Amino acid sequence: MESENGADEAGNGRNNHEEKFHDAEDGLCRGNGNPDEGDARGKPGQGSGDIIARMPVPKYATHYKMDHKKRGLAYIFNHEFFQCGGLKARSGTNEDCKNLKACLLFLGFDVLEFKDLNYTDIEYQIREVARMDHTHHDCLLIAVLSHGEMGIIYAKDTPYKPDYLWSSFTADRCPTLAGKPKLFFLQACQGDKLDGGINLSKTETDGECYNTYRIPVQADFLIVYSTVKGYYSWRNTTKGSWFIQSLCEELKQKALHYDLMTILTFVSQRVALDFESNVPDSITMHRQKQIPCLMSMLTRLIQFTPPK
Amino acid sequence: MESENGADEAGNGRNNHEEKFHDAEDGLCRGNGNPDEGDARGKPGQGSGDIIARMPVPKYATHYKMDHKKRGLAYIFNHEFFQCGGLKARSGTNEDCKNLKACLLFLGFDVLEFKDLNYTDIEYQIREVARMDHTHHDCLLIAVLSHGEMGIIYAKDTPYKPDYLWSSFTADRCPTLAGKPKLFFLQACQGDKLDGGINLSKTETDGECYNTYRIPVQADFLIVYSTVKGYYSWRNTTKGSWFIQSLCEELKQKALHYDLMTILTFVSQRVALDFESNVPDSITMHRQKQIPCLMSMLTRLIQFTPPK
Repeated sequence: MESENGADEAGNGRNNHEEKFHDAEDGLCRGNGNPDEGDARGKPGQGSGDIIARMPVPKYATHYKMDHKKRGLAYIFNHEFFQCGGLKARSGTNEDCKNLKACLLFLGFDVLEFKDLNYTDIEYQIREVARMDHTHHDCLLIAVLSHGEMGIIYAKDTPYKPDYLWSSFTADRCPTLAGKPKLFFLQACQGDKLDGGINLSKTETDGECYNTYRIPVQADFLIVYSTVKGYYSWRNTTKGSWFIQSLCEELKQKALHYDLMTILTFVSQRVALDFESNVPDSITMHRQKQIPCLMSMLTRLIQFTPPK
Repeated sequence: MESENGADEAGNGRNNHEEKFHDAEDGLCRGNGNPDEGDARGKPGQGSGDIIARMPVPKYATHYKMDHKKRGLAYIFNHEFFQCGGLKARSGTNEDCKNLKACLLFLGFDVLEFKDLNYTDIEYQIREVARMDHTHHDCLLIAVLSHGEMGIIYAKDTPYKPDYLWSSFTADRCPTLAGKPKLFFLQACQGDKLDGGINLSKTETDGECYNTYRIPVQADFLIVYSTVKGYYSWRNTTKGSWFIQSLCEELKQKALHYDLMTILTFVSQRVALDFESNVPDSITMHRQKQIPCLMSMLTRLIQFTPPK
């Protein structure tokens, strides 16, 4: 019966799981003795597969629905001063924050700004927004402007794993955002490698509608890092970070004309080509480059519509 | 003088580093005493910034140049049998390999297939392709079909970090691919978490031309994981993996009509919506879902043209 549902959901003639064909996983095949299976969201009893959320868009729509009553909430966690690790103040971050806020308001978001929060306060805000009813919202956006290192980001008082920011919004934990884009923007270092760059010189859709369909709880996330794993992320002490400057400029110019992944590719181009570090007093830090990193678990295109 | 070059490269009126504004990095600001600075590609003496590569496309082109003499090389590392960790044979992988190869040939790639290689042989192949002259190629594509775990992937004889696959192709190490897309596709588990899914129910460019420009050596990579970090990646033992089945189907239908990131978003939709595991003899493994993860460091759109 369950496998029949399976066959139904495969639907659309694209894929049919015939009973005689079984699926295997490309892992260690530890089977039920698997020590980590407690983590499995699909574990019986914790079966998120039984949770039912509202379908925001027809199953095979090419684009996310961006005409709900509201665009949605945008949280900006802006960090200038720190009380840990002897971290320097992030001069220019208020420029980023102002710039980003204006841009998100232009896109129709309800923007909330948080300055120099401790981790417990960030945790509280995330928990609260995950609890809210986003039924009439297109999406959710969370931006963090801070210091970072490989795999961590800094609150005012302590480092934390950014994964926490998105793990609260999986479709099983925040059903009113299920099937909607959840957007995360991180302006922070991911390590302390430098990218010296290289010189290039010239020498030469359709959506059908089903009554019910099933999605992975990890789907519909977009996580944008200002830099790649292991590398520095640069900030102009007066104009703000290269990434946020570029993001805002591209969104202002193109948000209503291209889908978001395309725009973010142009943001990467801008960061990669138009900037290089200007630290004349340090030959090591001078003239360095940066490239952002887009991590997409999206299942449709995001096209911003003019806000109401 | 160097900083003047910097100012020149900022070009296009987009960004001007005025001497009085300095850049900071959003890291620990350890400065020159930084123990990791030896890793810095920009370290004087190792200055990849001095390397000059051929500019494949005008600085602000929206798309990568896809009309070189050749499309480029595509390497498929196909793993069915293993001699480590008691790993099961990957039934269905040859179906994936055949399917993917046909698809890449259709796109004009020169496809090379490698079956059940040990790590040293994979290393050798990667080293050799990185040494080759890709001057007249549009791009490079490398696919690995294997077992995996969090952060690792299996060769026939041993696990290794997939990062090795791309680190050899940064613009400083492989200048003939500088400014060209480097595409990596990994069909493998990234852990052993299961995604139980959730039910959704219905209720409602322009390019100017400069003589020289500078890019980060980490730019222009696209790394596509069949699943998200920590999770299973599913394979039908007869038809092949959900991800490769979906990738090939979408490429066949859309490669010449949409840019690659858009197509890959539709691949994610297909994997997420059209598949769920069919393992009726295991209630834990049965009816699980999967979502791929796209990691893009691209700076332009990729639009495949009909092969010559």
